[in-house]
Amino acid sequence: MKIGLLGCGNVGSAFVKILIDNGDSIKERIGENLEISKILVRDLNRERDPWINTELLTTEAESIVGDPEIDIVVEVMGDLNPSKSLIEASLRRGKSVVTANKALLAEHYFEIEELAEQVGRDVFFEAAVAGGIPLIRSLRVSLVGERLSRVTGIVNGTTNFILTRMHEESLAFEEALAMAQRLGYAEADPRADLEGYDAAAKAAILSSIAFGMKVRFQDVLCEGISNLTAKDVEFASRHGFVIKLIAECARVQYENSQRLSVRVFPALLPATHPLSSVRDAFNAIFVEGEAVGELMFYGRGAGGLPTASAVMGDVIDAAQNLHYGSTERRLRRREVKVVPLDALESNFYVAIEVADKPGVLAKVATVFGECGVSIASMEQIGLGEEARLVFLTHSAKERSMVLTLDALAQLDSVRKIHRYLRVIDG
Amino acid sequence: MKIGLLGCGNVGSAFVKILIDNGDSIKERIGENLEISKILVRDLNRERDPWINTELLTTEAESIVGDPEIDIVVEVMGDLNPSKSLIEASLRRGKSVVTANKALLAEHYFEIEELAEQVGRDVFFEAAVAGGIPLIRSLRVSLVGERLSRVTGIVNGTTNFILTRMHEESLAFEEALAMAQRLGYAEADPRADLEGYDAAAKAAILSSIAFGMKVRFQDVLCEGISNLTAKDVEFASRHGFVIKLIAECARVQYENSQRLSVRVFPALLPATHPLSSVRDAFNAIFVEGEAVGELMFYGRGAGGLPTASAVMGDVIDAAQNLHYGSTERRLRRREVKVVPLDALESNFYVAIEVADKPGVLAKVATVFGECGVSIASMEQIGLGEEARLVFLTHSAKERSMVLTLDALAQLDSVRKIHRYLRVIDG
Repeated sequence: MKIGLLGCGNVGSAFVKILIDNGDSIKERIGENLEISKILVRDLNRERDPWINTELLTTEAESIVGDPEIDIVVEVMGDLNPSKSLIEASLRRGKSVVTANKALLAEHYFEIEELAEQVGRDVFFEAAVAGGIPLIRSLRVSLVGERLSRVTGIVNGTTNFILTRMHEESLAFEEALAMAQRLGYAEADPRADLEGYDAAAKAAILSSIAFGMKVRFQDVLCEGISNLTAKDVEFASRHGFVIKLIAECARVQYENSQRLSVRVFPALLPATHPLSSVRDAFNAIFVEGEAVGELMFYGRGAGGLPTASAVMGDVIDAAQNLHYGSTERRLRRREVKVVPLDALESNFYVAIEVADKPGVLAKVATVFGECGVSIASMEQIGLGEEARLVFLTHSAKERSMVLTLDALAQLDSVRKIHRYLRVIDG
Repeated sequence: MKIGLLGCGNVGSAFVKILIDNGDSIKERIGENLEISKILVRDLNRERDPWINTELLTTEAESIVGDPEIDIVVEVMGDLNPSKSLIEASLRRGKSVVTANKALLAEHYFEIEELAEQVGRDVFFEAAVAGGIPLIRSLRVSLVGERLSRVTGIVNGTTNFILTRMHEESLAFEEALAMAQRLGYAEADPRADLEGYDAAAKAAILSSIAFGMKVRFQDVLCEGISNLTAKDVEFASRHGFVIKLIAECARVQYENSQRLSVRVFPALLPATHPLSSVRDAFNAIFVEGEAVGELMFYGRGAGGLPTASAVMGDVIDAAQNLHYGSTERRLRRREVKVVPLDALESNFYVAIEVADKPGVLAKVATVFGECGVSIASMEQIGLGEEARLVFLTHSAKERSMVLTLDALAQLDSVRKIHRYLRVIDG
């Protein structure tokens, strides 16, 4: 089997390395020889890892996509263009495709899947969500008969690293971010990670597979972590919670029909929740199903080798399908119906800055009550100019929470609505 | 697709329930209707769950195995006989088979696999190891290109429940066992769980799949937990360890060749190890690979519904293979070469009972040193008649450890070699 590799960055180079190291044992186990015949790069003169055979490098995509000898195309370039057109061209010429491109899949998965079905070839993308963790295939095959109720994941290593440092070393957000950048866990421009867009792309793919619906990037509600403070983290810790950036897909009953909620947001998790112990750049996905109960998948969600390992699993699967003349079976999918955010319910954490004088709490509590939000616990942090009231509420609708905050903002004694966060139950 | 069900106990009945609840959505997703046409039982008159259609029940195995209309046979009876002959007869008549029978697979997997290959049908068994956790397919497909170094699992819920209670409530072994029996986590005759035989059967299957070798039940070295005491658990806790019954399969370098070590034993795990937080009847499998790094799979390892969920995943996979005229690809396997126990190395925990008088420790320590075992820490617990010395060693060969214990037994001042346990590093 001949493989054409599109891209030779971190993941592409690691993929070559794995094939050099394990090619013989793979051949022994599956009875098939895998060989990289060409590698598309932007710059022929850039320095490469020593195991890269530079004779395979080309800057001409057509020499890979148009090569009838190549059976499988592996796309690890990232970005939408020209990845999308190269993947489509490869499929049209009868090649199976393995991609790690989450941004592309979150926008165009369904067209690409349809094309693959038409031409009778595979598109695999285990590496696009949670790196080396074998999640996509588990959801597509093993759990396809399961009625899942909720999938909750930590799918962004950068933000999880930052939040872990804030919790364990009491760092401020900016300090933890700087540390992440220094250690290579965050990019120079970290916005895609911090604002939750990276996690949102993964949430779209994940929920499409888990719930059999067509969920796209724009269907995902998305909040990032960039305005979290050390005080939020400290309060959460003291009350037995850990703050994590969560990608959550859940079935929700809404006006007599089943809908899907797909969201990325920073949440307070009880320290006893299995996701709470997922530290630093690790990823984990917690799956709840009616029959199977609770499952968790844990591992490295990024990095060249773990991601390339997932690519390799897909390449072997595609190679075997080509060998046996079969393809991955298509799963039928419904158009998604997303539930409106304001109908969702949860417990909330609310932090507001107030004037430190008698009677303020009574006024504030009255507003919560009038808006139908019941307070579970309250604490004043700081004094005078620094005075801050922090609340944990019982379960309430997002709509009621927004109404509460709007009404609180009208009070003279409230200086600033600092923030609200959702709380996930154990 | 017509399914013949062999057995209607806990798992069989749960399987019927899942198909009743989810049959429509499964049909919608995979485009295939699954229908149970007959159910083999021992006793037609026994009371059944209300969702069981008693008209499907039969006591005649031949009416299922010999029915040309039946496409897939699901075996959930357990025991070796008549399961083995029914599975073989089903395959010979062109049916695919799904089984949850770990005892059978640990003895006869390779013959059954070979037969399935000859007749071009599937044998799937996701439910045989770690219940509802999608582990087997992940190892067979997603991770087949990965060079795994070690697989470490908590695969027996009964012993994990008992150990959790001993740790968290300081119960004696007998008290924790009685609690497990009262709550239905342990059987009236709990020996297969306590002595590690159940875990050993799973370790054989797991290591066969993970390492591509033919590992059978008798290749697995096996120690149980029945002589663990509250004192062992208390010492472990105090030093930052948790005692777990571990099924471990690892690649080991031995006399210039790669061998496999497959063992079940109670071990001290650092509290920071991901397996340490696996509580009660949950299962988890920790996988270490060269490229993928560390992975963990966590979920319910037993119980009717989780196990039946795994069976359902397999049935759907088999149904789609039949529909598309393909089968699961065989993986080639080598005969296993197991490394001799005494060549393996680890840190050890050693507890001995001694006469409480001056000079004893010096004598004991001398023996350790002469046998080449280096002591990392020592503690005396209790006084007088109760005096006990507890050691943690640095890494040593099992051979040296056994020599040490033999030599210690010769000392007058040593009353009893209480036990030794292995310590797994973080």
